[in-house]
Amino acid sequence: MSNNKNEYVKEITNIEEDFAQWYTDVVLKAELADYTDVKGFIAIRPYGFAIWENIKNYMDAEFKKAGVTNLYMPVLIPESLLNKEEEHVEGFAPEVAWVTIGGEEELEEKLCIRPTSETMMSTMYSKWISSWRDLPLLGNQWCSVLRWEKETRPFLRSREFLWQEGHTIHETAEEAQKFTLRMLDVYADVIENLLAIPVLKGRKTEKEKFAGAEATYTVETLMHDGRALQAGTSHYFGQNFSKPFSIKFQNREGKEEYAYQTSWGATTRLIGAVIMAHGDNRGLKLPPRVAPIQAVIVPIAIHKEGVIEKAQELNEKLEKKFRMKIDLRDNYSTGFKFNDWEMRGVPVRIEIGPKDIENGEAVLVRRDTSEKEVVKLDKIEERLAELLEEIQKNMYNEAAKIRENRTTVAHTLDEILKNLEENQGYVKTMWCGNVECENKIKEVTGAHSRCIPFEQEHLADTCPVCGKKAEKMVVWGRQY
Amino acid sequence: MSNNKNEYVKEITNIEEDFAQWYTDVVLKAELADYTDVKGFIAIRPYGFAIWENIKNYMDAEFKKAGVTNLYMPVLIPESLLNKEEEHVEGFAPEVAWVTIGGEEELEEKLCIRPTSETMMSTMYSKWISSWRDLPLLGNQWCSVLRWEKETRPFLRSREFLWQEGHTIHETAEEAQKFTLRMLDVYADVIENLLAIPVLKGRKTEKEKFAGAEATYTVETLMHDGRALQAGTSHYFGQNFSKPFSIKFQNREGKEEYAYQTSWGATTRLIGAVIMAHGDNRGLKLPPRVAPIQAVIVPIAIHKEGVIEKAQELNEKLEKKFRMKIDLRDNYSTGFKFNDWEMRGVPVRIEIGPKDIENGEAVLVRRDTSEKEVVKLDKIEERLAELLEEIQKNMYNEAAKIRENRTTVAHTLDEILKNLEENQGYVKTMWCGNVECENKIKEVTGAHSRCIPFEQEHLADTCPVCGKKAEKMVVWGRQY
Repeated sequence: MSNNKNEYVKEITNIEEDFAQWYTDVVLKAELADYTDVKGFIAIRPYGFAIWENIKNYMDAEFKKAGVTNLYMPVLIPESLLNKEEEHVEGFAPEVAWVTIGGEEELEEKLCIRPTSETMMSTMYSKWISSWRDLPLLGNQWCSVLRWEKETRPFLRSREFLWQEGHTIHETAEEAQKFTLRMLDVYADVIENLLAIPVLKGRKTEKEKFAGAEATYTVETLMHDGRALQAGTSHYFGQNFSKPFSIKFQNREGKEEYAYQTSWGATTRLIGAVIMAHGDNRGLKLPPRVAPIQAVIVPIAIHKEGVIEKAQELNEKLEKKFRMKIDLRDNYSTGFKFNDWEMRGVPVRIEIGPKDIENGEAVLVRRDTSEKEVVKLDKIEERLAELLEEIQKNMYNEAAKIRENRTTVAHTLDEILKNLEENQGYVKTMWCGNVECENKIKEVTGAHSRCIPFEQEHLADTCPVCGKKAEKMVVWGRQY
Repeated sequence: MSNNKNEYVKEITNIEEDFAQWYTDVVLKAELADYTDVKGFIAIRPYGFAIWENIKNYMDAEFKKAGVTNLYMPVLIPESLLNKEEEHVEGFAPEVAWVTIGGEEELEEKLCIRPTSETMMSTMYSKWISSWRDLPLLGNQWCSVLRWEKETRPFLRSREFLWQEGHTIHETAEEAQKFTLRMLDVYADVIENLLAIPVLKGRKTEKEKFAGAEATYTVETLMHDGRALQAGTSHYFGQNFSKPFSIKFQNREGKEEYAYQTSWGATTRLIGAVIMAHGDNRGLKLPPRVAPIQAVIVPIAIHKEGVIEKAQELNEKLEKKFRMKIDLRDNYSTGFKFNDWEMRGVPVRIEIGPKDIENGEAVLVRRDTSEKEVVKLDKIEERLAELLEEIQKNMYNEAAKIRENRTTVAHTLDEILKNLEENQGYVKTMWCGNVECENKIKEVTGAHSRCIPFEQEHLADTCPVCGKKAEKMVVWGRQY
């Protein structure tokens, strides 16, 4: 069995040697996604999609609690519409795909496949509201978007990805700003409580904000290799779109006013985040709350009388409460099966063989720590529920520990570079607020500003680049 | 109030005078969808989308019970891939949209936006299976597809629509055929039990079957004006795609074999079906099981002390069990509100005013029959649950009655035409099986064959067109 295991494990690259290749190996080997005949486009396989469904269901319920309703806008956007907001078109036009032929005829105006739907939503919203009584208008859509990236990677950066895009219209700036942050909190909740990854919350710098936004807020995460991943963003637009798109309403004073707007999005990148935050040399490691299979029963000595029956009986009991799988394949060794389910990151393996049955027991094995425990069959339901919670917490704590270990403070440009070279991770510094200093840091270290964290610290009085007075703390990191 | 009502109702066209215009009026007025700046593309508004979500959730759960898993394939399909199955490309190529530019560069090979994903699914499936142990492979995706229609109509025929497309691969022809029919049964269940519309189940003729299929099965529905609507189809492909796409597996005898395939789809047309099967001169009429709002509370004399509080208290109690809405708008008359919720098809209106509160009562008003009943507040939960079931059943029965009244038998071509001119609806005839006779009927009467029903009757011995021997009964109808 241990030989078997080594052979199997050999199939993925060592995580410390080549993280990028390890990532690709896990995506393919755990059957999360596959490459397709269309360059830069992936197929999301059922196991990967089931993770997305769990994220989506959780997130959608949170949106609905906030009064958000789903809707659906056209996938195609006319060029003239995309061009309406200046910064927005500059940001997106270079990376869109254009439809030029429809039904065998050349189109009069080319249509882009949506890279995001601010322009379309704004156009429709302007038709749908007239009075403050129609507000807030809180819409969201779950769909796919296209961005013609040059370098792609499954889930992290793909020419097509799945996401939700929320677009809301409010009566006042204050209400819109508040809603922007409420949605950021939904993302933080999903990522911390479902995906077991701690987030850093803050505001993006002017340089890093969304094309057309007045302010972009972000939840940032740190991966196993110390690189940062932007996991969700929420934008406050002010009246930047409502003016060019004429989203006007009659306010409580009876006067016409341009509305205040937000948008916010999270994508299938979150699947990439789960893989890269938690995985190890045995493959994927899924937090129980998001795992498509929370526990797998692997019967031992499957051909011995009564084993399959007992395993099935246990499965039937447990699947009422948990997302279960029972592995009855007769063409693989038990060792192969163990490795296979570990590769797929199933949080708990339940082993049950003739001896266990005799003793009225089964063995529970944790994916996160490899710890085994023997549990009486009549206690297994209760124990599994506890164990899944323990695993969820432990995985969060492990990820938080990695982040803590990878977070450093720097007071000079050299120090930022040194810290990143040694440790990657987040580097905290003060910053004067000048984009030239931000550009300099990027140029020298390859790190982008992650955000200006909501939780500020006063690390020094001056900017590490220009030496001028600095009042804001910024976190920097190399990114995916 | 009655004046108010008339004014409001005037805003939609009379259903008997101009059904097509009535339909468009209801779609817009009930805020189900709206036109956009992209010709032939609609925006599905929150109220319309909520109907789709209810359909989707129900259907998706049924698919999962059958072992189907969701996945996601690229939205773009290379021209060469679309061309692989001959009949398929002939069927779809004339109505696709082509992407020719990506990221500011002309593409080497043009890519179409998926009109359906048989070609992409087949390509990926061929990579994913190798043995009979990998089968069945039961995949489905919820997505949007494009077909460059010339004449469009919200929900019924749009250049873009939402749907699910299931694609499955099986070990044997028998298993695949059985699965094709099982999925047809899911559609029948959704349409009859959720949407309260009776279906006609059968097999499409060769002329009407899906491009590339060996057999297409359909669930057909009849609308208020007697026109037919194809509401869902399930296709058995045999090996028609597995051969050109090389979907091979090692069978139980150790021999390589081409797999057997199915696909099946249902779309946002179902929203159109609900509107057209049940609506009336007061607007939309929604079956309770699919209604986004099952009951709306309209407080009477809203400014009288305690009315709002009592209405809210009732709402809080009911919303634990039902999808509720409370209308506290202070800028509309009660009459306007009644009409507004009737337009939106809410199955039950609950009126509660000062007198009702004094008597510990409320008034329940059915959307389907306009019947009113006074119910004690402590019995309202129980009564509402019953009432919603009664409405659901009654709406199904009403639709079944319309269908019965609109179903006729014909023995000659003249008779088919006469029946359609008088009555529209379904016309049953015998048929020799020859496509020329089918074409003749289409040419003379404008009716397509709906299907060869599973429940056959022997109406005569000969075909009404050629007079030759006929063993099959076919149902004809003009269609949407």
